[in-house]
Amino acid sequence: MDLAQSILEGNRLALARTLTLVENDQPEGQKAINALFAHTGRAHLIGITGAPGTGKSSLVNQLARHYRRPAAGMPARQVAIVAVDPTSPFTGGAILGDRIRMRNLSGDAGVFIRSMASRGTLGGLAATTASLVQVFDAAGYEIILIETVGAGQDEIEIARLAHTTLVVEAPGLGDDIQAIKAGILEIADILVINKADQSGVENTERALRGMLELAHPTRRPFLGEANPTPENETPLWIPPIMRTIATADEGTPELIEKIGEHRQHLLESGEWQQRERERLSTEMRMVLRESLLQEWLAQIPDGAYQAALDSLYQRQISPRQAVQQLLQNNKETKP
Amino acid sequence: MDLAQSILEGNRLALARTLTLVENDQPEGQKAINALFAHTGRAHLIGITGAPGTGKSSLVNQLARHYRRPAAGMPARQVAIVAVDPTSPFTGGAILGDRIRMRNLSGDAGVFIRSMASRGTLGGLAATTASLVQVFDAAGYEIILIETVGAGQDEIEIARLAHTTLVVEAPGLGDDIQAIKAGILEIADILVINKADQSGVENTERALRGMLELAHPTRRPFLGEANPTPENETPLWIPPIMRTIATADEGTPELIEKIGEHRQHLLESGEWQQRERERLSTEMRMVLRESLLQEWLAQIPDGAYQAALDSLYQRQISPRQAVQQLLQNNKETKP
Repeated sequence: MDLAQSILEGNRLALARTLTLVENDQPEGQKAINALFAHTGRAHLIGITGAPGTGKSSLVNQLARHYRRPAAGMPARQVAIVAVDPTSPFTGGAILGDRIRMRNLSGDAGVFIRSMASRGTLGGLAATTASLVQVFDAAGYEIILIETVGAGQDEIEIARLAHTTLVVEAPGLGDDIQAIKAGILEIADILVINKADQSGVENTERALRGMLELAHPTRRPFLGEANPTPENETPLWIPPIMRTIATADEGTPELIEKIGEHRQHLLESGEWQQRERERLSTEMRMVLRESLLQEWLAQIPDGAYQAALDSLYQRQISPRQAVQQLLQNNKETKP
Repeated sequence: MDLAQSILEGNRLALARTLTLVENDQPEGQKAINALFAHTGRAHLIGITGAPGTGKSSLVNQLARHYRRPAAGMPARQVAIVAVDPTSPFTGGAILGDRIRMRNLSGDAGVFIRSMASRGTLGGLAATTASLVQVFDAAGYEIILIETVGAGQDEIEIARLAHTTLVVEAPGLGDDIQAIKAGILEIADILVINKADQSGVENTERALRGMLELAHPTRRPFLGEANPTPENETPLWIPPIMRTIATADEGTPELIEKIGEHRQHLLESGEWQQRERERLSTEMRMVLRESLLQEWLAQIPDGAYQAALDSLYQRQISPRQAVQQLLQNNKETKP
């Protein structure tokens, strides 16, 4: 079976198989991506992140359900969910999670759910997620929901994959989590207070608003963006704060509308294209770096690497000195 | 001033300056590390991680205070604290934190506190932390407390730097955080329930014990270690659960004793040396990979990299195909 061709024809089995090959970094998976790549670039990638206990997964399910319904002027969209949980050591947990979720969205061929709990794959979690998303994108999934837990470096890298990032909070999770909130504001395009029927929702909203003002005191571009200069002024996007009750399906249509507005903003400001390019450029650089290392290791004399390691273990040289020595010796021994 | 020499002579100003140079990835900092590296390998690196709100920082302060007191058969030790908070976008926060902490431990020249809030440095947060720790180690700090927030990939990598990793929990943080607890058990050498005077402590301990049993059902080595084979059986370390009340300074001496036992276990089982070697080997590999990339980029024809990027942006080729093409063309143009 030609996997890429079958995927383009809408074969779900081929899709599932390719996702597994890609996740396990198999050559056949890469071959499929090469063939599919020209068909990517159409999907809206939506990242959803937040601490455990915020009801993030229920919200993702509701979003999927709503995207599946034709609405005013909007056809039903094909939806993929990629759930990334690097903190779970038991892949069994991820599989179980899939089954429970499948029940809620079952019977709908327009939704495809994939959980990843792996870490430490060659390119890292973010690289594998990027590849999975490319497969879904080529397969015609117009909405790709990427769900992550927490606010580590990993989550921030995965969030960078997305065009639109939702950060989910919930009332009453305590003021202790201010630090996480502060860090995650950098990546939030939309802030969602889920479980908005719980007490303390006003406090949470006030706290978030305060932090937003701290982060955008003079309506500057997001932290981490280039410094604003007069010639590249674009309309600014200040992350709105939305309230939802995912378990009662309240607030989802308004949230979807806001996600659409953000997409429009990205397209009009040129940021959509800019984010795409940054993403592809980063991916290429990572693959190149790893390839160069593998090539180089394959051609150095036997034992050279181990000899450098031994000197390092005996603390005769520092890690950087060991690398300098390896590079130097290899040059000298070449014709 | 010869920074390395001054550090070895106990000059705190030289130490502070070198730490800044290292954190900013300056050549002078690396020069100092090269000179200092032969003096490393003596410190006990203790990682302390846990969610915000567990009172982790208070616990770290108490540990530092106790290590500074001469106890039964144990001289006072020099203590360094490296606080890593990748979620904080405002370095000002880290600096403020330092000031507050300094007040508690002030006037004690045997304690040195350093906060890092940077991310996105060349080698990443874990690499920078590793370098800072090498400087402290060479400077004669026998106890190095590395404090991190949360349970992302970053924290797990930083925890791998440590010989002994403490995972701090607190009662009543909710059962929703099970996922984090499960993930973090992999890296825990000692589990600490801080705020042990709060209600719910029994539940927390029971939950942790249940998860420990799940993780070590037949007393196997830690997840992530090589499969146990009959010939490499070593005495096993099952993470103990300790209770503390850092604000009332209760439980700290017992915790310090347990940390000492773990150190003993590592030394006797050979794991101490094994962890050191893995750490150094990983560091060398990362530096090598980045160096090879930089060297390679410096010698390819002008425009070749950009041309590959352009084909990628137009989705004519996938990221891996772009890399293959770059590597191939570069070989062909060589004499």
